Amino acid sequence: MADVKKSLDEIAAGTSQITPVKELEKKLSKNKKLKIKLGMDPTAPDLHLGHAVVLSKLKTFQDLGHEIVFLIGDFTASIGDPTGKSKTRPALSKEEIKKNTETYFEQVKKILDPNKINIKYNSEWLAKLSPEDLVKLCANSTLAQLIERDDFSKRLKANQPIGMHELLYPLFQGYDSVALESDVELGGTDQTFNLLMGRELQQKYDQEPQVILTMPILEGLDGKEKMSKSLNNYIGLSEDPVNAYGKLMSISDELMFRYYDLLLNQKNKKNSNIHPMELKKEMAFLVISKFWSTKEAELAKNNFEKVFQKNDYSNVKEVDLSSKNTSNPIWIVELLKTLGAIKSSSDARRLIESNAVKIDNNIIKDFKAEINWVSKKTLIKVGKHKIYRLK
Amino acid sequence: MADVKKSLDEIAAGTSQITPVKELEKKLSKNKKLKIKLGMDPTAPDLHLGHAVVLSKLKTFQDLGHEIVFLIGDFTASIGDPTGKSKTRPALSKEEIKKNTETYFEQVKKILDPNKINIKYNSEWLAKLSPEDLVKLCANSTLAQLIERDDFSKRLKANQPIGMHELLYPLFQGYDSVALESDVELGGTDQTFNLLMGRELQQKYDQEPQVILTMPILEGLDGKEKMSKSLNNYIGLSEDPVNAYGKLMSISDELMFRYYDLLLNQKNKKNSNIHPMELKKEMAFLVISKFWSTKEAELAKNNFEKVFQKNDYSNVKEVDLSSKNTSNPIWIVELLKTLGAIKSSSDARRLIESNAVKIDNNIIKDFKAEINWVSKKTLIKVGKHKIYRLK
Repeated sequence: MADVKKSLDEIAAGTSQITPVKELEKKLSKNKKLKIKLGMDPTAPDLHLGHAVVLSKLKTFQDLGHEIVFLIGDFTASIGDPTGKSKTRPALSKEEIKKNTETYFEQVKKILDPNKINIKYNSEWLAKLSPEDLVKLCANSTLAQLIERDDFSKRLKANQPIGMHELLYPLFQGYDSVALESDVELGGTDQTFNLLMGRELQQKYDQEPQVILTMPILEGLDGKEKMSKSLNNYIGLSEDPVNAYGKLMSISDELMFRYYDLLLNQKNKKNSNIHPMELKKEMAFLVISKFWSTKEAELAKNNFEKVFQKNDYSNVKEVDLSSKNTSNPIWIVELLKTLGAIKSSSDARRLIESNAVKIDNNIIKDFKAEINWVSKKTLIKVGKHKIYRLK
Repeated sequence: MADVKKSLDEIAAGTSQITPVKELEKKLSKNKKLKIKLGMDPTAPDLHLGHAVVLSKLKTFQDLGHEIVFLIGDFTASIGDPTGKSKTRPALSKEEIKKNTETYFEQVKKILDPNKINIKYNSEWLAKLSPEDLVKLCANSTLAQLIERDDFSKRLKANQPIGMHELLYPLFQGYDSVALESDVELGGTDQTFNLLMGRELQQKYDQEPQVILTMPILEGLDGKEKMSKSLNNYIGLSEDPVNAYGKLMSISDELMFRYYDLLLNQKNKKNSNIHPMELKKEMAFLVISKFWSTKEAELAKNNFEKVFQKNDYSNVKEVDLSSKNTSNPIWIVELLKTLGAIKSSSDARRLIESNAVKIDNNIIKDFKAEINWVSKKTLIKVGKHKIYRLK
């Protein structure tokens, strides 16, 4: 293993917080394989670049020779974990959990060495707890402590109900650290409370407590909200790299610097003299290289340059609308929705009003326009970076 | 079974609340044996007149032919139930629980027919709950609902910690009603929250909900606090009836009317023309007759009249101080404490200052007096109704 100072620097780069650094240093200096825990919720199997931030940090630990433990919350998922949500999530069946986990690891492979991952399921110990064990687990924390959690305190203030079982989840998650005897737990900054609960419970159960390492939350393509599938502002790790490259090229300059920082660990790009468009292309290339491959990054870059910079549309992928039960002619808004080019009708209105929607290079100015498309190889441009050709 | 209207009147007499009366009436009119639940906490086996209020009401149900179910909270006691206390109670061992339960039923026999009591232990179902069952149990109530409970809300306001496990107890107690499928649950008014939780959980588990019947809380001899062993303001059901009679004679006139009401179901005694002293003697006689026996009541009454009204001390029971490692001479305060005549040194100071302590009919005025007592058959009077003779 590398020397402690060097390891610590590599680990600390880009983190939001390490609690406490001193303990991590002490653990690293023991020169033994540390157990690095990452909790995984099998309800959302689609990984995106937001997840990549934490997974990349896990890769650092893996490269340093430590043991990566993926903790799959199958027990909590089988009950329906409502943590951090205003609505209770539906419970998952065993089959769904298995399928989601498989999908998840197909994607994780893109970042981590799959042969060096230890997979654990928390049903292994949680499902075996006796009522006495559970009462004792509960006795290790107070109500005041639990309702400090951001989403609980907000809901309490707003007089929104908090199910008693919801209060059990942080305890369950914390107990996972006890069962695993983890040395370090990783998560986004929004997981800080839960990670600290694990640290605290380990102490109550007379274990050396885990160190908490949190990573910043990556904003989605809109530059505002956390990247998430439900907000449709994400780039999936299993997406077509050409699509992904295009999406990366569509973000704001401000967000580009953030992606440099969080996804590529490159700070200070703001002070660069290079033209923002070139900087963005470099960022997109590097991100695709890192999470897909250099070869795919080259392809995506070439495609982008051809289509958007040289207006050569010969290679634009064709979309087969006829398989989608689409009418002909079709209302323009309906068409854009079907192509996935817009989120809402008001989105369409805004784009049309700003002359950003073109059919075969003719600007569409009428919100009510009906488009005749069958067998015409119609070319549709939406905004600067979205191009579709119909079959 | 008696007709519904008559039964309902008998049941309602002296209750604090029946929730809801309509449902009780409906249950009674079914003309079937109802399951009447009373929860019993095996941590406090000494029964006193405070318990007799609820037990007497249970007797009414027993006399009407219904099934009395004593629910012994052995599961909760084996963990340490902190309900309603600022400190967590220590957990009880199985042996202690067994011993306490036996002691308890020795005393219950004085009020209820022991052959018609169904005894149930909640470990029978609670200890078998799986973690999934428990999460589902918790999912049936919200945090807001639980912290409505008086002691919880008070502690929250005072920033006193509430252990997470404490919040589980109302749920456990409520689940007992589900497991028993009880029709009616009895308790003191301070139990209302817990009883309602049982009612609510039964509905969540698709059962016909139990009716809640609460009885007023009997004040102790001080007339202020709830009668309890820890406050030493109680009359135990297994106490010597002569002592018990003396204690009853020592209460205030105001409290006497309350005892008439709660223990003897006689209201409106306040309007009586009889002298308070005679009224009190009647109350004491009736209480001893009811919870001990008429014979013992006669004896106690005769003894009281002899000693306190005719100053005939020939029959005062002798106390053997020599068995108590007592020094001679002994400080008067120490002596009163050893006899159980006072609660505290300040109590002693107050009594001495008001000339209420007499040794062989001499008023003790010196708080520091040392009493020489060996083999002198010393007679000690404390206040109006406490008389001791030393051996």
